[in-house]
This record gives sequence, structure tokens and C-alpha cells, in this order.
Amino acid sequence: MDKIKRTINAIEKIDYSLSAKTQKRLDSLTKPQGSLGRLEEIAKQIVEITKNENPSLEKKVIFTMAADHGLTEEKVSAYPKEVTAQMVYNFLRGGAGINVLARHIGARVVVVDMGVNSKLKIQNSKLGIFKNKKINFGTKNITKGPAMTKDEAVRSIEAGIEAFEEELPEGIDIVGTGDMGIGNTTASSAIAAAITDEAVENLTGRGTGIDDKTFAYKVEVIKKALKLNKPDSKDAIDVLLKVGGFEIGGLAGVILAAASKRIPVVIDGFISAAAALISYRLEPKVKDYMIAAHSSVEKGHSIVLRFMGLSPLLDFNLRLGEGTGAALGISIVEAANKILTQMATFQDAGVSKKG
Amino acid sequence: MDKIKRTINAIEKIDYSLSAKTQKRLDSLTKPQGSLGRLEEIAKQIVEITKNENPSLEKKVIFTMAADHGLTEEKVSAYPKEVTAQMVYNFLRGGAGINVLARHIGARVVVVDMGVNSKLKIQNSKLGIFKNKKINFGTKNITKGPAMTKDEAVRSIEAGIEAFEEELPEGIDIVGTGDMGIGNTTASSAIAAAITDEAVENLTGRGTGIDDKTFAYKVEVIKKALKLNKPDSKDAIDVLLKVGGFEIGGLAGVILAAASKRIPVVIDGFISAAAALISYRLEPKVKDYMIAAHSSVEKGHSIVLRFMGLSPLLDFNLRLGEGTGAALGISIVEAANKILTQMATFQDAGVSKKG
Repeated sequence: MDKIKRTINAIEKIDYSLSAKTQKRLDSLTKPQGSLGRLEEIAKQIVEITKNENPSLEKKVIFTMAADHGLTEEKVSAYPKEVTAQMVYNFLRGGAGINVLARHIGARVVVVDMGVNSKLKIQNSKLGIFKNKKINFGTKNITKGPAMTKDEAVRSIEAGIEAFEEELPEGIDIVGTGDMGIGNTTASSAIAAAITDEAVENLTGRGTGIDDKTFAYKVEVIKKALKLNKPDSKDAIDVLLKVGGFEIGGLAGVILAAASKRIPVVIDGFISAAAALISYRLEPKVKDYMIAAHSSVEKGHSIVLRFMGLSPLLDFNLRLGEGTGAALGISIVEAANKILTQMATFQDAGVSKKG
Repeated sequence: MDKIKRTINAIEKIDYSLSAKTQKRLDSLTKPQGSLGRLEEIAKQIVEITKNENPSLEKKVIFTMAADHGLTEEKVSAYPKEVTAQMVYNFLRGGAGINVLARHIGARVVVVDMGVNSKLKIQNSKLGIFKNKKINFGTKNITKGPAMTKDEAVRSIEAGIEAFEEELPEGIDIVGTGDMGIGNTTASSAIAAAITDEAVENLTGRGTGIDDKTFAYKVEVIKKALKLNKPDSKDAIDVLLKVGGFEIGGLAGVILAAASKRIPVVIDGFISAAAALISYRLEPKVKDYMIAAHSSVEKGHSIVLRFMGLSPLLDFNLRLGEGTGAALGISIVEAANKILTQMATFQDAGVSKKG
């Protein structure tokens, strides 16, 4: 728990006064005031986060964290649990959606085994960046007891912080979160219900694509898990250990670590939002370091984002996870930052100001 | 008019059957079916447009067309009309918003003088790509008569086609539209009102940033121009000549030319949408070659997009024009296309299919 406390203590309150100063600079650029709308808002946030008036977001990293979920025994997912491990190999060979989109935006993908339910054989050093932070071989079935022990919950967040800190020397200007774990929309809905107090029905979606019957059962499974485990809504560690997942704890750690280093974090989909919620419950200040990439098909996603006061950049009906939405979001954040740092001023360009 | 007719005749009806075939291929990729939402829709549209199962969108071009408007005499703009020419120089020196965003996505910007009200001095060959297609030194004041002659209207569209055809040998896989012209939101609102039959009040916005009084006057100016000139809503050339602009005609030409070559066109903001409307009225088939980048602050923008059946990708409160929204849109279209062309299949990756 020491590592988590140290990281949280290092998260500074954002200096909001930088925003007005940056808007003044944006207003000196050759465009009507405010005419780049949301891009200008993002540019200001990046200056606030980095405390740098000329930030560069060149070094982009997406952490894609994978783990298995004991509740897949309940058959609430469209895919068999073996897919989690198979997709880790796919990430490392560069064939997955996140690999394609990360290449498109010039980001590197760091794949982390947080708790995949098989011994992964990663030998070929030519494969992508891989970190073994396995906490256990998947969580336990939350309809029968807690997902993990308290020690495992703490260690999963700490492993996320570690993964971030290990990667830091390679250069990180902006981070995206990503997940892989068959069953993890169920865990995320349970986390969201525990923390936001919203009805389970409003927080539960179709995951990777389940039918009506399975959907109704998924809602029952989550209700049963919450009733049995009674997570304490005020205690993020308790919520994580009762109904969470190892990749969700790991991503919460990445988010806290990034904020502690004044590095902006782009939040991907519903599972990443559940991780963000855990980090937010641990330390609300972390919210100002986050940018929500998109609003997904998952019903609970927009509720969780609103709970934290985040408004998503994109609305593309995505529901893949892996960090795919975060990759698109990072590219937009970088564009916004370049507007601030690369555009000519009215004075430089000899353009007349508003009459 | 011959060049316009030839171009229109070369625009083929989209082969919608390619969509189902492409969806099948998307469903073989390592992701839950449909989980990339809007990206999958775009990927299918690109295959339909290009008739190529493995399209590349590497060569990206944004046409930023500039012209002046006689109605600036009426003082309906926040900026003096000199800014149009000053911004052309800024585009060519690389300091404008569109330059920054075009560099970000790896696109080249082609700046076209369609009718700037001054003799531009473009000598330094190191500056950006520039084309002189000046039809006249700005349009006439539409509150006193038509914006241009019929011959000028036809020539502005033909000049847009020419600009596109001249640039084609350099390589164009995808096109973005962009505009610069003080006063051109007023002309665009008038075009939109003439063609869609929607009330002027619902189609008129604040342009680059005018106050309440100027806004009310802008609405009156547009109504007066429509009453005086009586554009024929069914005749795109008549609408363009009565209340349009040279850059708007030029962009309509670019859009028609791109469609005739099966090249996707990403439509920028309100002025580009007015140009798209002109091209759509000339040949409705052109609509299937368009992707709307964003919905801007300009009130009429979403109405015009809906009129053509287009739904915008982004909603960032942009109102700069120049092609800035198109640049962001192009990057997303390219990402969607890479999903189709670069992701591994379930079979390649040894990933289990839906259980």
C-alpha cells in the first residue's frame, strides 16, 4: 500500500490559472477567437497538466493490460476465456486493432499480463513490448465470493504503477489505457454500480455481443455478486477486491502513476473508465489529468464518465477496448497541442485583427 | 459547361453490394463483430468508393480555396476583408491552423486563389503549393444584384475541377475541402436557404464571431439578397451565381472531380457543406463519395448535412474552416481503412471465434 500512497501524494492539484494564460496565447494565433472549440479546451488542459507552455506529445504509449475473470464460469460472455491469452499473442505479433491504430498515430503498445489464466510463452524478443505482472491466474467467480484478496488488489494497482515507472525512461509524453479480458465488462458494471450507486440495469451492456437472455442473466449475476460481496462504495480497494479484475487494478495504477508525473492520460472505453473510477475514488485530483477518448456502446460508460465530470471526445459506437478509442483520442489531443505550439500569431503573419 | 457535364457523367453509381462483402471481411478480423462501430462503416464506404478491396489512403490532399465577397460592404463580418489575402500568405508560409493539422496527418495543402480581391504576389517557390484560378476580384454585393455572372459561376466550378485534375498526377487517395473568405458564411447561409428551403434564421450563425446586432442584420441581408435575386432552388448554377462565392464554386468542382475519379472527399465545415450542396444539386450521386468531417458551431451546418443524408464524424464546436475539420476527419478515415487492410484475421492469429 506504500507505493500507492506515495504515488497519490505526488499528484498535485492542477493550476487552473494556466488556462486563462494559455487562452490568451491561443487568441493571439491567426484564427478567430475560440474558433477551434474543443481543440482549444484540450490544448489548455495539456498546459495545465504538464505545467509546460510548449509541451510536446511526441512520445505516445498505450498500456494494454490483460487478465482473466472467474465469472466467465457463469457464461456471461460471447467469447470463450481462452481468447484473452490468444489476444495477448495477437497484440505481440501486431495484428490486433490496437496495433493498427497505435501504428497509425505513432504510439508504442506496452502489453501487460496482469492475470491471464495461462502461462504465457513469450520468448521471441522481436515481438512487441511485454511485461509480466501476473497477480494470479485470473480472478475468482464473484458470484461465489470476492474476486481477489486485499493483498492482490493492492498489488495489482502497484504493478500498474511499476509498469508505468519501468517504461518511463523510454519516454512518455502522453498515455492511453487499454484492456483485454473476457468477462471484464461484467466486472466493470459491478464496479460502476458499487461506486456510482446507479442501478445495475443502467450500467450493464452487451459486452462483445451477447443475446437478450444472456444479457438478462448478466444483470442477475452482477446483482448477485454485489449482494454477496457488499463492496464499500467509499473504499476503492474494497470495490476492486470484491468485484474487480487484475487488469482494472493495473490500469488504475497506470492512471495514478501518470498523474503523479504530470502526464496526460487518455481513457479508452468502459473497462478503462471503471479503472479510472477506482483511481478517482482513491484520489479525486486524478480526474484533471484524464481525457475521455470516447463514449462507447456500453450503456454504463457515459454514466461513469459523467460521474467523474469527463466529457468524451468521440462517439463512434466502439466496443472493442484494447485502447483503440484511446489511440484515436491521443491523435486528437496531439493535434490540439500542435495548434497551440505551431500556429503563427497575428503579429508574425501580418494578419489584421478583428475590426 | 462542357467540362462540368463531362465530370458529372463520369460519376458512377456506388456499388452497394461491396458493403456486405467488406463487412464479411471485417467480421473475419480479430475483434467482436461490429465492435469498431463507425470505423467499420467508413471502411466499407471507402471500398465502395474506390472499388478497391485494399485501398491505400496514403496520399492526402486538402484544397483550401480562397475568395472575397462583395457583401462585406454590408459589414456582416467580424474581420476586415483584407484578411482573406493575408491568410493566403499565411497558408503559404505554413503558419495557419490548416497547415498545422495537415502536417499532423501527413497531408499536403493546395492553396487556390479563386477570387481574392487583390493581386497576390506569390514569388517564392519554396512556399506551399499555390494555384491561381482567380475568376474575378471578389463577388459583387448580393444585396444589390447577383454575386457573379453565369459565365463566372460555370468557370468557378470548372476551375475547381481543373485544380483537382492538375494535382492528380502528384497522387491523390483522399481529398479534404477547405475555404477562406471573409463574408463566406453569409453566402453559404444564402445558398443553404435557397436550396433547402429552410428558414434563413435557422441557417444563419455567428461566422467568425459577430455580436447580436450584427447577427440580426446578417439575417436581414440574406433575406434581402434572396428576395432580390430569386435563385432557382432546382438550378445549382443559378443559386451559385445569384448568392454564392468563387471559392464555393471551386470546392463544388473539386468534389465533383474527386467523385468522378472514385476518390473519397472529406467535407469540412459550413462553407464546404454549401459547396457540397451545390455539387449535390448538380448530381445527387456525388453524396456517396462524401464523408462529413464534423458538425460545426454554424447553425445551418447540421441542417445542410442532414439534407444530403450525411452524418458528421466529429462535434468539436469548430468554426475556423480552411479544411481544419477535414484534416481531423481524414485521419479518422485513414484509421478506419487501416483496420480493414492491416488487422489479422481470427484464422491468421489462432484466436477462437464466438462460442
